[in-house]
Amino acid sequence: MLSRNFLTLEGVSREELRDILDLARVHAAGHGGLSLVGRTVCLAFFEASTRTAVSFELAARRAGADVISISEKGSAVQKGESLIDTVVTLDALGADAIVVRHPSVGAARLAARYTDAAVVNAGDGCGQHPTQALLDLHALSNAVGSFDELCGRKVAVVGDVLHSRVARSVIPAFQAAGMEVALVAPETLLPSENGAWELPILPSVDDAIDWGADVLYALRLQNERMTSESPRIPSVAEYARYYGVARRHLRDDVLVMHPGPVNRGVEISGDVVLSDSSLIPAQVAAGVAVRSAVLAYATGVAQKAVA
Amino acid sequence: MLSRNFLTLEGVSREELRDILDLARVHAAGHGGLSLVGRTVCLAFFEASTRTAVSFELAARRAGADVISISEKGSAVQKGESLIDTVVTLDALGADAIVVRHPSVGAARLAARYTDAAVVNAGDGCGQHPTQALLDLHALSNAVGSFDELCGRKVAVVGDVLHSRVARSVIPAFQAAGMEVALVAPETLLPSENGAWELPILPSVDDAIDWGADVLYALRLQNERMTSESPRIPSVAEYARYYGVARRHLRDDVLVMHPGPVNRGVEISGDVVLSDSSLIPAQVAAGVAVRSAVLAYATGVAQKAVA
Amino acid sequence: MLSRNFLTLEGVSREELRDILDLARVHAAGHGGLSLVGRTVCLAFFEASTRTAVSFELAARRAGADVISISEKGSAVQKGESLIDTVVTLDALGADAIVVRHPSVGAARLAARYTDAAVVNAGDGCGQHPTQALLDLHALSNAVGSFDELCGRKVAVVGDVLHSRVARSVIPAFQAAGMEVALVAPETLLPSENGAWELPILPSVDDAIDWGADVLYALRLQNERMTSESPRIPSVAEYARYYGVARRHLRDDVLVMHPGPVNRGVEISGDVVLSDSSLIPAQVAAGVAVRSAVLAYATGVAQKAVA
Repeated sequence: MLSRNFLTLEGVSREELRDILDLARVHAAGHGGLSLVGRTVCLAFFEASTRTAVSFELAARRAGADVISISEKGSAVQKGESLIDTVVTLDALGADAIVVRHPSVGAARLAARYTDAAVVNAGDGCGQHPTQALLDLHALSNAVGSFDELCGRKVAVVGDVLHSRVARSVIPAFQAAGMEVALVAPETLLPSENGAWELPILPSVDDAIDWGADVLYALRLQNERMTSESPRIPSVAEYARYYGVARRHLRDDVLVMHPGPVNRGVEISGDVVLSDSSLIPAQVAAGVAVRSAVLAYATGVAQKAVA
Repeated sequence: MLSRNFLTLEGVSREELRDILDLARVHAAGHGGLSLVGRTVCLAFFEASTRTAVSFELAARRAGADVISISEKGSAVQKGESLIDTVVTLDALGADAIVVRHPSVGAARLAARYTDAAVVNAGDGCGQHPTQALLDLHALSNAVGSFDELCGRKVAVVGDVLHSRVARSVIPAFQAAGMEVALVAPETLLPSENGAWELPILPSVDDAIDWGADVLYALRLQNERMTSESPRIPSVAEYARYYGVARRHLRDDVLVMHPGPVNRGVEISGDVVLSDSSLIPAQVAAGVAVRSAVLAYATGVAQKAVA
Repeated sequence: MLSRNFLTLEGVSREELRDILDLARVHAAGHGGLSLVGRTVCLAFFEASTRTAVSFELAARRAGADVISISEKGSAVQKGESLIDTVVTLDALGADAIVVRHPSVGAARLAARYTDAAVVNAGDGCGQHPTQALLDLHALSNAVGSFDELCGRKVAVVGDVLHSRVARSVIPAFQAAGMEVALVAPETLLPSENGAWELPILPSVDDAIDWGADVLYALRLQNERMTSESPRIPSVAEYARYYGVARRHLRDDVLVMHPGPVNRGVEISGDVVLSDSSLIPAQVAAGVAVRSAVLAYATGVAQKAVA
């Protein structure tokens, strides 16, 4: 997994996770010495995502890299230029790393075939979003004390697992960290691969609390499933009743996570989003350090994790 | 007013204005030593504004800051992320200052409640636009010799005062600088708060000249008031006849100002925009130095004005 | 031609071309010492062009310049601000060089009248695109060994010459380099000025090969000529048959060039775009070094080419 390309977290090992999180931690503490001076990092976003783009840009800039951003708006994409031609162009422009966000599953892997630059997957369709999962582990490790203390804890992944690339990355990451994972979702939002995952299914967030969840990880419900006549959920209100995280769930030390941006009142009630139980701002903060570490691996600045 | 946040110029004192303009002047002269190296300045523009965004970006970049720009286009705003969540996100990303432009009055003040970063108001609805007023004073001070020489001069603020955040910032700023202010506008474009301001109302730019105006400060007429069947002005031609600044007004040393972008032939005739009487390019030039000074205050680099 | 402004390649001499390509070559090799630190380069793109914008941005950034990009999206252009006012604004903001891309022919020359900053034409309507021609010569010189070895070689410029600013720049550049130029295009896509150029017209790419072409330079076919009921070409398939570069043309050492982005299967078949005969990635790569050299001239950092 920890090759120069950063495409997926499927099959990642506990040691690999620990390595990169250690690097991020040392870097975040200000004495990692990660320098990307003289390296060119290209952000190729074929799909809008403010948070992820800004986080990668800061991660690259603060480490001294030259950063080039291209996005679907006002770009060659409008002229029908394909992903491949864009990647070849960025390669020719001297990119050391290309961060790809794309609406199609497998786009990052495809891109990697056409460049010697390292490709970092910043989310491809309902495929993978590996740096999201890493920053989640980083934020969660900080909250519970350390990466090792994640082992044995219980996390309930709540909501639209079916369409979520975040789910496809955080579930293997949580498992590699030794956590116990359950899903909380209606049948209509569960993927067929759950057969392979063999995860328990719980019918509501209330049941997840009864199960003993230490962490409630709420997934974003895509707008198109809220506005149109979607056959997947009966109504937003009904969805929120069973799958929304509310104040009543915040007993003991339950932690609430969400990859953002939150639909307040749907996945998480408004008073919980910025409560003490919420790791949401910590997740955002973790993103910059984690992505600096990922870019350091990708560009060859860090060949191995810190000793 | 000169707290770390920079939200309004209402209630500003003459001394506070002088302090920050002094800092801008020293900085513009190249020996201010303002360094924003290691600081992160985020531009959060929920409304398009090339001039203001570029000016802030240059102000931050030239002083060495890391700059992150997010705009409504291609952003989380499209996903329904609220202003508050954006501010919390930028805070978590490590922003030292957040420059907010927003279509709703009070947005900057609201933002400031949710972050420890300093919030700089870059225009919020028909609320305030404090750095515009500061750069106007800076450009005008340079033109007449010094800030102190502004005292006692007469400025006519012309046009759509009702909908103008610029008016709400420049009027208190001009008054704090000791200038005499009159308004030139039709009744339909005058705000109700003029009762509080107690400013004289003049019926045309010709009358402003007769009044003895040293400065004609023309406000932008928003497109929607020119194109649609607006009940506020009879016609663009009629508006230009009474409220447009023309060559015939340029006698003696009258100075013409405008916050930009100008509707040529409406607020100001085309031959006046770049004439010797026009301070418009000087206003733009002043923006960078003034905003560097504001960001220095905001990030705590400058705690007090130069001695 | 090699004044501080960079508007056209018409009338360029062989010596001027060699000078700037030498500077680009030395710079690309990493010992040019071109430093744009402290200079402000503004990209004013009134027309979308990812490749060109990114290439200029990298060229400026890697040399240390402060770069400001404004584009039609989300900009003052939407507010009706004219090219002239934008240029005056950028001038007032302290721009040392303004790179202009605009849909109207002559826009760059017009811009240059309103600023003391150097204006670099990054493509204006069907006018000129001089840096494209320079990077083409640079990539081609590298491919054949040196600039001097271009002399006497044959290049066929294929496709929509009529609407192509690239054609209007590469043709005089190829001629100044001593190359023999022919056009391959239907009558409907040939400009009237070909009378002045006095270039041979060939009816198909097959004929260009028979003519002995060393280089096939394919021009982009604009989308509007492919999608609508254009009277200029009978059909895209028909166009591709006569004017498309295909695998069968790649005998001997024929080189294939295209300014990008390619319409695969139209101007060039998909299997040729990234083949060994294709210089397309090399053209992109050449752009950064060439544009650094151009910006060095434009900002006065390089007053003369290297000795």
